[in-house]
Amino acid sequence: MESEYIAWLTAETQRRQQAAHVPTVPLGIGDDAAIISTSSQTVCCADLLAEGTHFLLRDSADLMHVGRKALAVNLSDMAAMGAKPETALLSLLVNREVGFQQAQSVTLGLLDLADEFHVALVGGDTCSWTGGLVVNVAVHGTLLTSRPLLRCGARAGDALLVTGSLGGSIQQQHWAFTPRCRAIDLILQRFHVHAATDISDGLVRDLGHVADASSVGAVLFSERIPVSHAAIKLAAESASNPAEFGDSDGIEIAPALRHALYDGEDFELLLTMPPDSARQLLDLVQNGELDLGCPLSLIGEITGDQGLYITTSSGKRPLIMGGYQH
Amino acid sequence: MESEYIAWLTAETQRRQQAAHVPTVPLGIGDDAAIISTSSQTVCCADLLAEGTHFLLRDSADLMHVGRKALAVNLSDMAAMGAKPETALLSLLVNREVGFQQAQSVTLGLLDLADEFHVALVGGDTCSWTGGLVVNVAVHGTLLTSRPLLRCGARAGDALLVTGSLGGSIQQQHWAFTPRCRAIDLILQRFHVHAATDISDGLVRDLGHVADASSVGAVLFSERIPVSHAAIKLAAESASNPAEFGDSDGIEIAPALRHALYDGEDFELLLTMPPDSARQLLDLVQNGELDLGCPLSLIGEITGDQGLYITTSSGKRPLIMGGYQH
Repeated sequence: MESEYIAWLTAETQRRQQAAHVPTVPLGIGDDAAIISTSSQTVCCADLLAEGTHFLLRDSADLMHVGRKALAVNLSDMAAMGAKPETALLSLLVNREVGFQQAQSVTLGLLDLADEFHVALVGGDTCSWTGGLVVNVAVHGTLLTSRPLLRCGARAGDALLVTGSLGGSIQQQHWAFTPRCRAIDLILQRFHVHAATDISDGLVRDLGHVADASSVGAVLFSERIPVSHAAIKLAAESASNPAEFGDSDGIEIAPALRHALYDGEDFELLLTMPPDSARQLLDLVQNGELDLGCPLSLIGEITGDQGLYITTSSGKRPLIMGGYQH
Repeated sequence: MESEYIAWLTAETQRRQQAAHVPTVPLGIGDDAAIISTSSQTVCCADLLAEGTHFLLRDSADLMHVGRKALAVNLSDMAAMGAKPETALLSLLVNREVGFQQAQSVTLGLLDLADEFHVALVGGDTCSWTGGLVVNVAVHGTLLTSRPLLRCGARAGDALLVTGSLGGSIQQQHWAFTPRCRAIDLILQRFHVHAATDISDGLVRDLGHVADASSVGAVLFSERIPVSHAAIKLAAESASNPAEFGDSDGIEIAPALRHALYDGEDFELLLTMPPDSARQLLDLVQNGELDLGCPLSLIGEITGDQGLYITTSSGKRPLIMGGYQH
């Protein structure tokens, strides 16, 4: 399986990428390791997806989705660091029964997204076993500006912005989301961002990570949070089953908004920046002068007092920590 | 499990590494990605180990061995590229029943070897599931000289050298092998090496990779091949069961030598270099002027004619391709 896969992969990556990516990849697939061109600082991360935990394989199209997502979650991390992704290592553990075909489909899903974002697949590992499909992708990239976007950079008074819309990603969006690489690149060309993270565990939980790392608090404006159609649909569907939403936190939050606050795997960017810059940026986006490829919303502000709050029509209330546990 | 593990890991890596590795790691574990200091070319590779395919877990000590090995195989790849390993990303998929403890033991095994080789663990991913243990490690490093050691660099007339001794690794050595990072560093400080690979699939198979990539052939000198004690022991044990060794290739090769030629997972370095340099290098090692930390043996030569041969007391015979399939 392994040699057949490597032969195919070598040909496929050369066909797709060699011409475009040669400057960043002096040596790609085929030796003991790859060599990539790097600047003085390289940003790197890895994410692992496992069958049964992160995904189910219901039909063969899901294999390409898994490959796409395994790269996409890493590109989202790169965007959240203010970095441009450039190269990837793919480690595949496939079921022995379906070996090569499974490896090929996952890889094609990854390569399609890699081509779109000009990322070169430079190496990795492939094995088969009797268990479920496991896909690990490690990505390397370069900072877009001289400073990375860290979770610990938020300051009291910062505006809180989010790309796209939130909630209900489990319905479809978690397979198909667009990593916000282009959006963060365009924003950083004109503005300073103080802190950033991508929303993988849910808005409230990931906002909590930023607040903890920065020793600050935050207030969310409930009416400004961009609730996705999927969240509204999910909420409507479960309206007949109110128990699912519980009310144990004692806050009256509309079911759709609850999805936007707590659902995981949105993979949108959460940014904090000075309020003046945020206003200028939002003006540019709303006037159509800056096309980020997605909506951008002002959803709250960073406070010097710690703790997370939300303002609703009935006043300001503390937010209960919650969200998605992978 | 994940948050408990990350909290422990952050403290543990800081305790072990922060002071020593700060120059190569501007940003370690804890944000969306890590940042590592890099030169203009970064060497990177990844290897995945899966329970049942690459290892069995018989007792709890095996977990630390798995962690050690998951890093060690990557360090061996780095040595084979002529690169110094510097940072690692660890992705762990552990069984839900034993979650945190399993993750911790694997990580401790990895960190012990990382400390020994001054490698900083800078990030990764951790999840639990109902299946077996899966460990993926990606490593980054820097070339020791201006040129990488590739499989395709062998030239007719080159001497063929190997570190350590070969065969029978399955008994114990595949857990405990020393990646030959120090040896290659010392060699490259004084000599040019034309081609290199590490022996993971077995001497004959990996020599075949070098020969194919370089469009050359090779002759092995059977009496010069360093046969390990483990190979001799294995051969003695199975003397009562000759069927295990078959004889389908029709060559009369002593059973212990056969282990040295075909067993996988030795993780020794196979090098080709000009014969004059090889003689000087071997003199230095034999005189005790250069301590590589392991034996170094001249085991054959590269030939312009393609094909792999071995000289035995009964003459020169073609080598049948074979070796270890993972």
